[in-house]
Amino acid sequence: MIIVVKNNIEEDEINKLMRELTDSYNIAIQKITGSQCTVLGVVGDSSAIELDDIARDSRVEKAMRVKEPFKKANRAFHPDNSIYDIAGRQIGGKDLAIIAGPCSVESESQIIGIAEEVKAAGATFLRGGAYKPRTSPYAFQGLEAEGLELLKIAREKTGLPIVTEIMDPSTLDKFVEDVDVIQVGARNMQNFSLLKLLGQTNKPILLKRGLSSTIEEWIMSAEYIMAGGNNQVILCERGVRTFETYTRNTLDLSAIAAIKKLSHLPIIVDPSHATGLRYMVEPMCMAAIAAGADGLIIEVHNNPPKALCDGPQSVTPNEFKSIVNKAKQFAALADRDIKEVM
Amino acid sequence: MIIVVKNNIEEDEINKLMRELTDSYNIAIQKITGSQCTVLGVVGDSSAIELDDIARDSRVEKAMRVKEPFKKANRAFHPDNSIYDIAGRQIGGKDLAIIAGPCSVESESQIIGIAEEVKAAGATFLRGGAYKPRTSPYAFQGLEAEGLELLKIAREKTGLPIVTEIMDPSTLDKFVEDVDVIQVGARNMQNFSLLKLLGQTNKPILLKRGLSSTIEEWIMSAEYIMAGGNNQVILCERGVRTFETYTRNTLDLSAIAAIKKLSHLPIIVDPSHATGLRYMVEPMCMAAIAAGADGLIIEVHNNPPKALCDGPQSVTPNEFKSIVNKAKQFAALADRDIKEVM
Amino acid sequence: MIIVVKNNIEEDEINKLMRELTDSYNIAIQKITGSQCTVLGVVGDSSAIELDDIARDSRVEKAMRVKEPFKKANRAFHPDNSIYDIAGRQIGGKDLAIIAGPCSVESESQIIGIAEEVKAAGATFLRGGAYKPRTSPYAFQGLEAEGLELLKIAREKTGLPIVTEIMDPSTLDKFVEDVDVIQVGARNMQNFSLLKLLGQTNKPILLKRGLSSTIEEWIMSAEYIMAGGNNQVILCERGVRTFETYTRNTLDLSAIAAIKKLSHLPIIVDPSHATGLRYMVEPMCMAAIAAGADGLIIEVHNNPPKALCDGPQSVTPNEFKSIVNKAKQFAALADRDIKEVM
Amino acid sequence: MIIVVKNNIEEDEINKLMRELTDSYNIAIQKITGSQCTVLGVVGDSSAIELDDIARDSRVEKAMRVKEPFKKANRAFHPDNSIYDIAGRQIGGKDLAIIAGPCSVESESQIIGIAEEVKAAGATFLRGGAYKPRTSPYAFQGLEAEGLELLKIAREKTGLPIVTEIMDPSTLDKFVEDVDVIQVGARNMQNFSLLKLLGQTNKPILLKRGLSSTIEEWIMSAEYIMAGGNNQVILCERGVRTFETYTRNTLDLSAIAAIKKLSHLPIIVDPSHATGLRYMVEPMCMAAIAAGADGLIIEVHNNPPKALCDGPQSVTPNEFKSIVNKAKQFAALADRDIKEVM
Repeated sequence: MIIVVKNNIEEDEINKLMRELTDSYNIAIQKITGSQCTVLGVVGDSSAIELDDIARDSRVEKAMRVKEPFKKANRAFHPDNSIYDIAGRQIGGKDLAIIAGPCSVESESQIIGIAEEVKAAGATFLRGGAYKPRTSPYAFQGLEAEGLELLKIAREKTGLPIVTEIMDPSTLDKFVEDVDVIQVGARNMQNFSLLKLLGQTNKPILLKRGLSSTIEEWIMSAEYIMAGGNNQVILCERGVRTFETYTRNTLDLSAIAAIKKLSHLPIIVDPSHATGLRYMVEPMCMAAIAAGADGLIIEVHNNPPKALCDGPQSVTPNEFKSIVNKAKQFAALADRDIKEVM
Repeated sequence: MIIVVKNNIEEDEINKLMRELTDSYNIAIQKITGSQCTVLGVVGDSSAIELDDIARDSRVEKAMRVKEPFKKANRAFHPDNSIYDIAGRQIGGKDLAIIAGPCSVESESQIIGIAEEVKAAGATFLRGGAYKPRTSPYAFQGLEAEGLELLKIAREKTGLPIVTEIMDPSTLDKFVEDVDVIQVGARNMQNFSLLKLLGQTNKPILLKRGLSSTIEEWIMSAEYIMAGGNNQVILCERGVRTFETYTRNTLDLSAIAAIKKLSHLPIIVDPSHATGLRYMVEPMCMAAIAAGADGLIIEVHNNPPKALCDGPQSVTPNEFKSIVNKAKQFAALADRDIKEVM
Repeated sequence: MIIVVKNNIEEDEINKLMRELTDSYNIAIQKITGSQCTVLGVVGDSSAIELDDIARDSRVEKAMRVKEPFKKANRAFHPDNSIYDIAGRQIGGKDLAIIAGPCSVESESQIIGIAEEVKAAGATFLRGGAYKPRTSPYAFQGLEAEGLELLKIAREKTGLPIVTEIMDPSTLDKFVEDVDVIQVGARNMQNFSLLKLLGQTNKPILLKRGLSSTIEEWIMSAEYIMAGGNNQVILCERGVRTFETYTRNTLDLSAIAAIKKLSHLPIIVDPSHATGLRYMVEPMCMAAIAAGADGLIIEVHNNPPKALCDGPQSVTPNEFKSIVNKAKQFAALADRDIKEVM
Repeated sequence: MIIVVKNNIEEDEINKLMRELTDSYNIAIQKITGSQCTVLGVVGDSSAIELDDIARDSRVEKAMRVKEPFKKANRAFHPDNSIYDIAGRQIGGKDLAIIAGPCSVESESQIIGIAEEVKAAGATFLRGGAYKPRTSPYAFQGLEAEGLELLKIAREKTGLPIVTEIMDPSTLDKFVEDVDVIQVGARNMQNFSLLKLLGQTNKPILLKRGLSSTIEEWIMSAEYIMAGGNNQVILCERGVRTFETYTRNTLDLSAIAAIKKLSHLPIIVDPSHATGLRYMVEPMCMAAIAAGADGLIIEVHNNPPKALCDGPQSVTPNEFKSIVNKAKQFAALADRDIKEVM
């Protein structure tokens, strides 16, 4: 970390600042005095320092990190890609994860029907919402516990591991017992209490990027989980909030390249929620693979359309099948694979 | 709600859509057929409908609300301003709430010292962080339970009601017992599980606006709390995330006018965290009052500066005193008052 | 400017970089070698350097300015507020500029009617669009040259100096001859060719902030005009583009405090276009004055409403009158004045 | 267009509004009265109407378009892709356009050197900045006229058509005479005067997306050029401005899918300026092709690095060569081609 001291600060005040910093944090500080200004170089691990706490000091002109603030998620300290083995499937390895299913679990026939269709089409994981984060308290909140049970039945029938979102610490034990991959939604990306609890589990966590989260903040949220001892974090890019209204969010595929550079964690892409437009799902899936994504999470709904869940971003099982087939070709070109699941 | 049907949809398919909607929601639908397109007018309470669920239907061109989706927080159904009585102080009435204190509670002497200074300067509430949301798991997370105890001691010494942030449902009972106003931070604005729990308490809730939350989403989060039976919600504008990097966030004072128009809930402003710049606190306080804010929450630190908490956005007790004095004049012009607390 | 060199760069490569920089720019560079990294301190005027050009060098870790990149607009080199005398009215001094008028000039009777009404209500300048920037090439583009003539007639009748937007260099001579204050719209804030031409005139320039312009970029655009020799630049905050859709743009009143700190140029506020909502004009006007604005530019339309121009953000002459009356009180509290024009 | 009238508007006032609208625009209006509200359906061409002008009316609740406001750029009226023939190369057809070159033209040897290298590596067009838009008036503004001459020499030597940015109408004739594709930069995307002039030329125009331009506004700027009679517009996605600071801008690849759906105009992608990071250029190129882009514009610099232009986003000729080779494979999969130029 580099700290530029304001021009008008006296020598003894600078020394005082240095003492305060070394007292507050487990670091050493090297003072480098230039003709124009004095710069303090922080030696040692500055990951415990919030940049704001420094920038904020009235004697400081500017402060900036030279090293990233994350450690366990940092590729610098873990050069190889993290690869997780989940119910016989790998995430982060050569095989791409193809996670598919409806936005909400609605009934046994619905979820089993979709599960069988997406499996036949090439999905390797089943997704479905049991506990739904809704903007309105009056809107359908999901089948909740019953939804989880239906997902388990669908898993039994198809063998597909299940991915579903947790919203409440009180349901954690149930999720750990029942779910294969626990999803943390964009709205909870900085729900640090929840992240800490998930850090104490041994379950893979699918961590969606917050609506206006920077890449660094996103990795720091993964770091919260890993700091607790759970290293199985899967990042999921699902679009960020911008001024553009044509798409629901703006899908940031450059985040794939950034994550691959900065971290060893796998990153998958959710084109359905990012764009909110069915016709964009296929091209964004291909683009994500070409950019180096480790997997896709795609919303698939069964026919006939039900207003409750059918969406512009939900593709049909047939559309999903053609997406997977095309994805296999792009995966091969990206030196990846999409493996049939028996 | 107005639903515009796509041009190419057959009559019977439109009727099918209408049936699905009336089956899914407790509404009536009136079909109004134009030469260019067919429009469906939703009659009845459409607050249970997520606009997305409709817009996403493949037969729908566009959907838009004519009425707001919130009810209990809606001024249309509650014309008078909501006024809460908290430990003998009013929020939402003629008196402005002046909430002041340090970002973090650090020690008994620190918090008592600041509490006495801000009270003498005109503060009507004491703020201080015990549980701190930090971007980094390695950064100081606050004194937690001990911090709450110190806040209680400061309240005893000064009589100032305390405002502090909750992060974890597991601490809810303690907050209900110990705290006068429970703060929900920007990162948890859409932590719906937490909002539901807070809705079951009888404590005033200070709900900060999310970093990239629209005004409607913000009010809907208040609606979550109110739907549970707790009507004492105080909204707090603390800046939204934009492309601008000079200020930490971009303070949206037009949100005050918007909230006053759309809702009966009180709204206060946090210029300290919004701007992240000490010199902006005073002008933004005056602007907030001129715009019609119901109060201010200001970060005040004690001297001498400690790197741990001193910040560009933290003003000194003396600066705070002059802010309050100036604020009284603007308050008077805005037909409001800042009352001395004995 | 501080340049942090990447860790893996050899000594001789660092020296090479230093030579390249001193060859490319009129600066001296001081190398300060720390244990963790090498920092280069730029000595001398670095305003000719685009930060990007440095940051982009493959040997550079990070680069940051310690001093602002603007000179003529910089308060550091010009401590006193800039005050311009325009047809007997001051902008930037104790008197607030009250600029009012319709979005578009539509007819002689319309513009004269409004001019007389806004003058009677307390306006000190008349605004009106002759050349209109429209998103659509098929939309009404303004009365253009005829509109300018009508503004001149209105000025003759009322004595109000006129403020109107220039869009095309080919009309520059006409604007210099006919207009009192030349407005540069948000869309042209970085139309550097136009800015350079305006820098060669002796006319006051009202420079609106670009839709997604940072405060620094905005001041740098003012610097373009001043670099040409024209020091009479008036900045105008008119809202920035964010994710929020309730207001047309998000009015950034903290920009007033920022500009007052960084620059000596006057700054006025346009609440009409920023919010796009008539009911917000009054509270945002008061907030702007409380925050230290040097003036207001308000859209006023005459009755009866004409779809062509009547807008949610356009207030009526009566509403405008009450805004000015209220503004006078807030101005007094902010130690400013709104002077009647005879 | 659908206009929802406010609930409290009297019948005769609604009729008055309808008359005003039909008087102001060449449209018919159909009143459709519902139990909850009255909706006006605009019959006929509403492209001349600015949505704001309607939404603004104090009697209007909301207004929304059902059809897009653009005509000549609209795929609905021109189902086939637009294909332009430029000096023997096609843009918009099966062949991808590979536009490469330095950010700035610096010298004859530099531009000829790069031109020969990028041609050998597979480029089909040469790019290079002669007139440079710079944030600072004190920064290098490009070689200007001399730069154009050097580009012409490079074209003579290599046969590569040249693409360069215009900033000033006064240079238009020179650009029409000397340049093969005239580029309009992001900052000038809504410089409507310039767009109108370009609409009167017969030159292909490369229209970059504005920093905070919506997809609709971007197409409307293309419509300005086409409305003048010049149908050869090439859109260029170069990233939009968001809160993310890790990348210079946020590359919006979903814009490719959107443009392909809404318009028949070709769209190319500029990964260099969008990301500002050299290592992201290759993955974003592949993603762009996979998403359906019609070409790429890539910044390539020659060795040895010169601080003046070498950049994180500038790749070397060797890196460029490997990007083109990889791009050919992805192009084939996307049923496109990258043709060698003799």
